[in-house]
Amino acid sequence: MADAAPSASALPPEGPAALSEPPAPAELSAPTELSAPAAAELADCWDRLRTDSPLVQCLTNIVVAPFTANLLLAAGAAPAMVDNPHEAAGFTAVASGVLVNLGTPYDDTVAGMRAAVPAAAAAGTPWVLDPVAVGGLPWRTTTAAELLALAAPAVIRGNASEILALGGGEGGRGVDAAHAPDAALQAAGDLAGRYATTVAVSGPVDLITDGQRLLRLAHGHPWMTKVTGVGCALGALMAGCCAVSDDAMIAAGTATAALTLAAETAADSASGPGSFAVELLDQLFLLEPAELADRVDPQ
Amino acid sequence: MADAAPSASALPPEGPAALSEPPAPAELSAPTELSAPAAAELADCWDRLRTDSPLVQCLTNIVVAPFTANLLLAAGAAPAMVDNPHEAAGFTAVASGVLVNLGTPYDDTVAGMRAAVPAAAAAGTPWVLDPVAVGGLPWRTTTAAELLALAAPAVIRGNASEILALGGGEGGRGVDAAHAPDAALQAAGDLAGRYATTVAVSGPVDLITDGQRLLRLAHGHPWMTKVTGVGCALGALMAGCCAVSDDAMIAAGTATAALTLAAETAADSASGPGSFAVELLDQLFLLEPAELADRVDPQ
Amino acid sequence: MADAAPSASALPPEGPAALSEPPAPAELSAPTELSAPAAAELADCWDRLRTDSPLVQCLTNIVVAPFTANLLLAAGAAPAMVDNPHEAAGFTAVASGVLVNLGTPYDDTVAGMRAAVPAAAAAGTPWVLDPVAVGGLPWRTTTAAELLALAAPAVIRGNASEILALGGGEGGRGVDAAHAPDAALQAAGDLAGRYATTVAVSGPVDLITDGQRLLRLAHGHPWMTKVTGVGCALGALMAGCCAVSDDAMIAAGTATAALTLAAETAADSASGPGSFAVELLDQLFLLEPAELADRVDPQ
Repeated sequence: MADAAPSASALPPEGPAALSEPPAPAELSAPTELSAPAAAELADCWDRLRTDSPLVQCLTNIVVAPFTANLLLAAGAAPAMVDNPHEAAGFTAVASGVLVNLGTPYDDTVAGMRAAVPAAAAAGTPWVLDPVAVGGLPWRTTTAAELLALAAPAVIRGNASEILALGGGEGGRGVDAAHAPDAALQAAGDLAGRYATTVAVSGPVDLITDGQRLLRLAHGHPWMTKVTGVGCALGALMAGCCAVSDDAMIAAGTATAALTLAAETAADSASGPGSFAVELLDQLFLLEPAELADRVDPQ
Repeated sequence: MADAAPSASALPPEGPAALSEPPAPAELSAPTELSAPAAAELADCWDRLRTDSPLVQCLTNIVVAPFTANLLLAAGAAPAMVDNPHEAAGFTAVASGVLVNLGTPYDDTVAGMRAAVPAAAAAGTPWVLDPVAVGGLPWRTTTAAELLALAAPAVIRGNASEILALGGGEGGRGVDAAHAPDAALQAAGDLAGRYATTVAVSGPVDLITDGQRLLRLAHGHPWMTKVTGVGCALGALMAGCCAVSDDAMIAAGTATAALTLAAETAADSASGPGSFAVELLDQLFLLEPAELADRVDPQ
Repeated sequence: MADAAPSASALPPEGPAALSEPPAPAELSAPTELSAPAAAELADCWDRLRTDSPLVQCLTNIVVAPFTANLLLAAGAAPAMVDNPHEAAGFTAVASGVLVNLGTPYDDTVAGMRAAVPAAAAAGTPWVLDPVAVGGLPWRTTTAAELLALAAPAVIRGNASEILALGGGEGGRGVDAAHAPDAALQAAGDLAGRYATTVAVSGPVDLITDGQRLLRLAHGHPWMTKVTGVGCALGALMAGCCAVSDDAMIAAGTATAALTLAAETAADSASGPGSFAVELLDQLFLLEPAELADRVDPQ
C-alpha cells in the first residue's frame, strides 16, 4: 500500500495515551526475513477466497460498514455485519472469519465485541483486530487491551501509530501515522510474539510479521489514503483470507497484495478519490489469481 | 432480479433457528396465477412515485442506510431515517410509507421499531418488513415475530431462506438463499394468508404473492448480489410504492420491476460491482414509466 | 447551491414542533449586505484547508458518515468520527473543528454531543451545528436547544425550514424546505445575533450571515438534492474551514463555494445522481484555489 490508509477515526500525531495495562516485556527478538510467503502462496490463497466465498462476520464502524461489505463482496467473500450483543457470539460459530474494528465503538457494540471474541476462540474461528486510533483515545485503548486479554487474534492490522501504541513501545504514546512503518517493526515483532499472532502494519510499504518471518509489500497508491475505510476493509479482507488459510502470514499478505495491486490498476483510470473508490471495487473483482502471482513482489 | 440480493447480514445455509412462536396453520391454499398486475399498472405506479415523491421513513441498518437513501432519492422518493425510540412512532403519521429492516438491530433501534409498527398501523401508513437473516439468528427472529404480532405489514420482502424461516415451513429452518425462490412459494402463500399481506421473494426470479395472486418477474443481473444493500433498498422502494398504490401487489411489483430493469441497463455499461452500483442509481433515475411498461414482462 | 440539499432525515412541510424553550427576543436587526467576504478571501481559506489538513471531529448520522468522511478527505481535511460519550469530549481538544449533526440521534450519541459541545468551547475548538429536521421532530428539537444553551457554535447550517424552526420564527413551526432561503433570512439574522454565531441557509441560493454581514452564493446544481448527505457533508466542510479561519463568515462561505462550484463541474460529466456523487468528490479534490477565486461570484 502506498500510504497508510487512514481509518475514519484516525488519530493525529498529538494524541497520546497509555495503554490501560502495561504490556509484558517483549519475549521475541526482531523478526528475520526468512521464509516469507512467496507469490504462488498468495495467489493460491486468493484463489481459495474466490472459490470458497467464506462468510466474514464484521463488528465494525458506522463509517466504513458499507464499503467493507462491498469490498468483501467484490473479492468473493460473503459479509455479515452481526455486531449486537444478543447475536454476535453465537454467529462466530457460523462465520468462517471475524473482524473486530474499533472505529466507532459504542457501549452496545463493544459488548458485542466482548462476547464475540471468546466465542470465536472457542469455535476455532479466526478473528482479526483492527485497533483504530488506539493510543490516542483512552476508552478504545482499554477495550483493545481487554479484547486481546480474552483471546489471541489471528491478525492485528493497523497503521504504524496504532501498532506502536498497542505494543506499548515508546512509552505507549500514539505517534504520527505518517511515520514510516519500519518505525513500528520492533513493536510489531514484540506484539506478534506476545500474543502468538501475526501483525500487519499498513503504510507506504506494508509490513507483515509473525515474529519470525517478515513480509514486505510495496504496492498501492496514495489515493488509498483519500478514501475512507480502505484500511478498515483490508482488515475484513484479512479475516476472509484467514478463513481459507491456516497460515495467517499468507492470509494477511494475500489480502494486502490483492488490495494494493487492485489499487494500482484502479488509479490508472481514476480522476480522483471518488472514481478511485469505485474502480478499486471493480479491479478487486476482476483480479485473477494468475495476475496477482505475476504482479506481486513479496520482499 | 437475476439473483437474490444478499443482505449485509445474509444468513448462510447452516444457520437454523425456530421462530419464537410456532406459526398458526396456513389458512389459504397456494396462490393461483390469476389476475397478476399487468405492465400498465406497474408503469402507472412508477409514474405516481416519481410525481408524488412520497416520504419514506426507514428504520434500517448501518450497512445499507446510505445506499437506501440514495436509491430512494434516485427513484424520486424522499427518504427519512427516523429510527430512534423517541421519534420513530410519531414520525409514522408524517411519513407516507415505513420500512422496518432487521439487518443490524440494536436494543435502541429495535425499541424504535416496536414503537413505530403499531403507530404506523394506527396512522394508516403502510409498512414493509424486511426480515434480514431471520431464521438463523434467534434475537431478530423473535423480534420479527413480535413485530408481525403488533400489526400486519403491507409487504414482507426477503430471500427464499428468510421467507421459509418466517413462514415456519420445513420446521422453521433457515435454508440456503441460493435455493430457488419457488421453494419458498408455499411458505410465501401461507405467510400472505396468515397476515393478510403481500410477500415478495427475491431471487433469480422474483415472486410476489398476496395468497391469491402470483406475479413472477425475471429481470435483473447477477451483480445485484455483489453490491450490499440492493435487496434492502428494494424493500424501501416497496414502502415508497405502497404510499402511492392501495394494491400492495402492484407496489411490490413496481419496485421490483423498476430496480431489476435498471439493473439490466446498468450492467451493460459497468465493469464490475463498483461501477454497477453507481450506474444502478443513474439508470433508476433515468427510467421512464413508458420504458418500464415497454420492457417489463410480468408472468 | 442550486437547491436545498435535503438531509437524510429531511423534514416534510407538515411537521411542526415548538422549540422546547421559547427563544429570547431577537436583539439584532436584519443583516446588511456590507463587507461580505470577497472571492480572494474564500480562495485563501480554501488554500489553507488543503495545506493544513485540519482534523475534523464529526458527531454525525449513520446515513451520511461515509460520504462525509470521503468529502472531507477529498477536500484535504482529516475526518475523525469520534462520537461516543466516553471519548467525544476529550477528542475536541485534539480536533481542530467539530461537527454536531442531528440526523440520526440516539441516546448514546446525544450523550456524546452533550459532552462534546462544552468541551469544544472550553478547548477553543470551533463547532458547527447542523440541526437536521429540527422543528418537526420534538426530541431533536429539544436537543438542539440544549446544545445551543451549552455553548455557541461557530456556524449553524441548515435549510430554510430548519433555520426558521430553530429561530422560533413563525411560531416555531417547521416549514417547507423548498421554501426560498430568503424566507429564512430574518430568522437567520435573529439566530446569528442571539448566539453570536454565523448562520448558513442552504438552498437554490445559499445565504450566510453573522447578523451584520450577508453573503449570497448562487452556484450548485439540482442533483445536489438527489444525493444523500451533501448538505450534511457541507456542515462538516464548514467545520474544517473554521479550523483554518478565524472568520466564520469566510469559513462557511468557502465551504459553500467550493462544494457548489465542484457540483457545477461534476454535473457536466455525470449522467444521474449516482455518477454525480462520484464526480463531486473528484471535482472537489481537483478544485484549485485559483479556480475557486476565478469562478466564485459572491454577492
